[in-house]
Amino acid sequence: MNLLLIEQGELSARSEVLLLDARASHLRDVLCVSPGQFVKVGLIGGPVGRAEVLWVDDETVRLRCELSDRTPEKPRVDVVLALPRPKVLKRLWSQLAAVGVGCIHLTNAKRVERFYFDSHAIREEVYRPRLLEGLAQARDTHLPQVRIHKFLRPLVEDVLEPTHAEAKCLIADPVYERSPVRVLEGLAPERRVLIAIGPEGGWDPFERDLFQGHGFVGVGLGARTLRSDTAIVGLLAIVNEALRLGA
Amino acid sequence: MNLLLIEQGELSARSEVLLLDARASHLRDVLCVSPGQFVKVGLIGGPVGRAEVLWVDDETVRLRCELSDRTPEKPRVDVVLALPRPKVLKRLWSQLAAVGVGCIHLTNAKRVERFYFDSHAIREEVYRPRLLEGLAQARDTHLPQVRIHKFLRPLVEDVLEPTHAEAKCLIADPVYERSPVRVLEGLAPERRVLIAIGPEGGWDPFERDLFQGHGFVGVGLGARTLRSDTAIVGLLAIVNEALRLGA
Repeated sequence: MNLLLIEQGELSARSEVLLLDARASHLRDVLCVSPGQFVKVGLIGGPVGRAEVLWVDDETVRLRCELSDRTPEKPRVDVVLALPRPKVLKRLWSQLAAVGVGCIHLTNAKRVERFYFDSHAIREEVYRPRLLEGLAQARDTHLPQVRIHKFLRPLVEDVLEPTHAEAKCLIADPVYERSPVRVLEGLAPERRVLIAIGPEGGWDPFERDLFQGHGFVGVGLGARTLRSDTAIVGLLAIVNEALRLGA
Repeated sequence: MNLLLIEQGELSARSEVLLLDARASHLRDVLCVSPGQFVKVGLIGGPVGRAEVLWVDDETVRLRCELSDRTPEKPRVDVVLALPRPKVLKRLWSQLAAVGVGCIHLTNAKRVERFYFDSHAIREEVYRPRLLEGLAQARDTHLPQVRIHKFLRPLVEDVLEPTHAEAKCLIADPVYERSPVRVLEGLAPERRVLIAIGPEGGWDPFERDLFQGHGFVGVGLGARTLRSDTAIVGLLAIVNEALRLGA
C-alpha cells in the first residue's frame, strides 16, 4: 500500500478519521506505525496529502489528515472490454486501476460465454476493494467507473457515441497491423482515448465493422497473439506511455 | 493453443509425430480434429508449418508435419528480473514467453526474500510447460532461456558484461523519469535490448549504482508505481512496440 485511501464521509469535521478495517491492520501490523508518525493519504476522487497517527490500539487507528491542493492527474483512457473469464477478471481489477483508466465498460461479445455475467467477479463488493488496492499501489485517487453491458450494439450506438464524440477511439484486434502509438501521434492533450479490447480469439467480423462504422480505428501489436489479460495490460501500458510522451 | 509445438526429437524420419500427452487431448477434445485435417505446427527453436492429422483414437494422435522455411523472428529483448514471489512468477512464465523474450535472468536483490529461491516455481519442470504455453499462444517457437543467479554483482559484472557488450541496457525503476521509448529511439536493428526490472519496492540505491556503473540507462513509466508483475508485462510491451516501430 503506497497510499492510504479514505472516503470523504469518513472524515470528521476536524479532519480526523477512525479506521477499524483492513487499513487499520495494515498500518499496525505491516507498516508498524506509532503515534506521531505520518503516512501518505488520498481522498477517493480528491487530493492527496499526509496524515498524522494519533492513536493505535489492537482494533483501531486514529489519524488526522492534512490534505494538500494536489489531486493526481485523471487517467485519460477509458476501456471497453469484452467480459473476461471470471478468474482472469478478478486478477485484472487491481491492474486496471493501477495502470490507470477512467471508465471500464464490460460488454458481451460473440466470443464471451453468457455465464460470465452470472459471476460474482462483476459485483461491486468484489471489484471495489480490488480497484482500491490498485489505486493505492499506483498512488492515485480516481476510482475507475464500472459499467456492465449485456449487449454490444446499444453500448456502441447509444452509450459511447454521445459520451465519446470528442475522444480518439481505437479497436484492438490481432487482425490490425497499425500501432496504437502511431494513431495517437499528435493527439491534442485535452482529448480522451477510448480503447476496445476483444475476448480470447478477438472480436467477431461483425463486431469489428460495428466499431469501425462508429469511427473506431483498428490497432494491433504485431504478429504475436496475446492472451486477453496480457494484451489488456500491454495495450494500456503502451497507450498511457504514448500519452505521457505527448505522442 | 494457436500453434502446436513439437520437439525435433519427436519427429520420425518420415516427419511423423505420435502424440500421447496433453497436446493429444487438446487436439482431440478441444479442437476435435479428425484424419485429413490440418493444424498449425512449430518446431521448438525452428520453423513453423502445418501438419496433417493421420490418426486419432482415445489415447493418441498421429500427425505428418510439413515444415516451411519460415522461422518466427527471434525476440530482441532479454530481461533481468529480481526474483518475483513464487505465486506471481508462476503466472508470469507464460506471459513472458507470449510477450517475447530471449533470455530470462532471475536474480537475487536486496528486496527479494531468500526463500523464493527454494520455491518449485523456478524448477524447469514447472516453468518449461508454462513457457511453451505462452509460445503456443503467441505462435512463436523460440523458447526463452532461463538462468538463475543467487548474487547480483557477479551477474552484472561477469555474466552480462561480456554477453551484452553490444546491447542497449536499461534499468527500470520508479526513481527514473526517462521513457524507455526515448532511450530506444534510433536503435540500430541488429542491436539487442536488455532490461533489468526490480522487485516490489524497486532496486536498492547500491543496485542502481551497480547497473548504472555498467552502462545501464535508467528508465521509468511516470508517476504511477506498479506491482512488479504489471510493470514487467507493461515494460516489455512498451519496449517490443518501440522496437517494432523501428523506435
